[in-house]
Amino acid sequence: MKKISDYAAEAEMALRALKLSEKEPASLYGPVDYALSSGGKRLRPGLVMMSAESFGSEKALDASRNAAAGIEMFHNFTLLHDDVMDHSEMRRGRESVWKKWDATTAILSGDTMLTLATQLVSKVEDDKLRSVLDTFNHMALEVYEGQRLDLDFENADSVNSDIYIEMIRKKTGALLGAAGAIGAIIAGAPEKDVAAMATFGEMLGIAFQIQDDWLDTYGDSSTFGKPIGGDILNDKKTFLLVKAMEADAGTVDALKVTMKELKGEAKIKAVTRIYEKLNLNEVTRQAVSFYTKQALKALKGTSLSEEKREPFRLLVDKLTGRKK
Amino acid sequence: MKKISDYAAEAEMALRALKLSEKEPASLYGPVDYALSSGGKRLRPGLVMMSAESFGSEKALDASRNAAAGIEMFHNFTLLHDDVMDHSEMRRGRESVWKKWDATTAILSGDTMLTLATQLVSKVEDDKLRSVLDTFNHMALEVYEGQRLDLDFENADSVNSDIYIEMIRKKTGALLGAAGAIGAIIAGAPEKDVAAMATFGEMLGIAFQIQDDWLDTYGDSSTFGKPIGGDILNDKKTFLLVKAMEADAGTVDALKVTMKELKGEAKIKAVTRIYEKLNLNEVTRQAVSFYTKQALKALKGTSLSEEKREPFRLLVDKLTGRKK
Repeated sequence: MKKISDYAAEAEMALRALKLSEKEPASLYGPVDYALSSGGKRLRPGLVMMSAESFGSEKALDASRNAAAGIEMFHNFTLLHDDVMDHSEMRRGRESVWKKWDATTAILSGDTMLTLATQLVSKVEDDKLRSVLDTFNHMALEVYEGQRLDLDFENADSVNSDIYIEMIRKKTGALLGAAGAIGAIIAGAPEKDVAAMATFGEMLGIAFQIQDDWLDTYGDSSTFGKPIGGDILNDKKTFLLVKAMEADAGTVDALKVTMKELKGEAKIKAVTRIYEKLNLNEVTRQAVSFYTKQALKALKGTSLSEEKREPFRLLVDKLTGRKK
Repeated sequence: MKKISDYAAEAEMALRALKLSEKEPASLYGPVDYALSSGGKRLRPGLVMMSAESFGSEKALDASRNAAAGIEMFHNFTLLHDDVMDHSEMRRGRESVWKKWDATTAILSGDTMLTLATQLVSKVEDDKLRSVLDTFNHMALEVYEGQRLDLDFENADSVNSDIYIEMIRKKTGALLGAAGAIGAIIAGAPEKDVAAMATFGEMLGIAFQIQDDWLDTYGDSSTFGKPIGGDILNDKKTFLLVKAMEADAGTVDALKVTMKELKGEAKIKAVTRIYEKLNLNEVTRQAVSFYTKQALKALKGTSLSEEKREPFRLLVDKLTGRKK
């Protein structure tokens, strides 16, 4: 059985086939090549190809290579622009594009990546073009809306967990949903399967993001890859913090004072103690479990055989059961 | 006879029909609405519609409304991002988006406009979609390449006029070319007419940009709308400066010293004197005339009757014979 890692490796080859390092002017395409050659797990384009082959055949897999590359190109375009917005100096262990060059380069080469992505996903048969393109553009708008909501959250006094879920559905879920859906469209799958794969990806994205929030507080720093508690130190509006802010007024006041007065390890410990009091470790795991089940339910609703559903189930395990 | 201003007025209505002010989240779409409601001559979307009706009929005109709005949306997307790159605080007499909000907003709402533009130009009949989309995406890449070359010019020691022409062909010509071509595609015009309209727009764009450079030195400040000599004061690499830099070594040295040592009115006068010595007033007018003729030649090569070519000729006059 082929796994997501096999498809991810094929997606990597599709990206290399673009030969971005040869395109002129190098001042425009060089940063695109730099961003795309810095690794990344290629799960999103892998999902496009896995979906295409699962709903179709080897022919559908071949037909999905460019669209898969386009989905990864889109993802990396958002990273270039997000890094400018967030002033993030590092990305995948290397300097981010704006840091290595400048903000102008990150903006303009990012724009270039969005158009290249649109070109790549458009390289499908004529009778699939409208559907693939509509799915792609709709997804793109959801990603921007999610990013905007995320930015607005940081300045908002209160955020409720329903809006938080809607934000991560758009910011993280929409792209995974489009990846699954576009693969199915290319394979000629019926509308019902396409819609189910969109839901599968969206729910998986939500589960993944909540799990990521959980790991930042409850993970093991040696396997998580970054220090535990970073989100708490940065007052980041995670699922845990948003849930905590929905508690009784006394707890919320205590939490606000703690966040404002304390620093460093003391802050991490005190906030975590409040999370414990609210049973948020358990509440958060349950939320991950809920959205994971939603993803699996959508998967089961497709016309895929149990055998063909297996690599998708393994992808779910990989993204939501992971320790790092 | 309908003129470009009539089509521009129809394009304005197509933009208003988008009701951008009602879209949520307002923090994302509000700046899009702000940018698009600040006026602008709407010549590019007007050209889409004029081309569609001229090669087709009223039905083609109707079918081109969304694509026209998409072309204007794309143009304004580039302005949002260019203003961030150039730190331009004003745009059409109002604060630019990054100045009114922040760079993050200009980047993210700009990205949104690029996707909205792609959606809008895709609202054509299925049998036109591939052709319109390919034309649009190819144009977009040329615009980015042109902007990149323009940025690189500012840091280059020497720039030759061939590269300069290539830069403005991409930065200014490509969008006008795509506007003319997309209108023709929507009207179902033959390939030959589509290609001719692309050339028409490109050549018109080059002529327009060189004329703009000329006006900055030789125009009448009362009708030009901004002070004469701004480009000279800013050492902007205009057609005139690029041409002057191709003169004999003695003149180039004198020009460099003049640009470096002098300021204000004295600098404008001294540089203009060197331009006069090189006969650049005349050389530049001839270049405008050359590219204008190329545009008219392309127009004549279409299957349009002389009567139907008339509004396009008037557009050429408007853009290249203008005093402001």
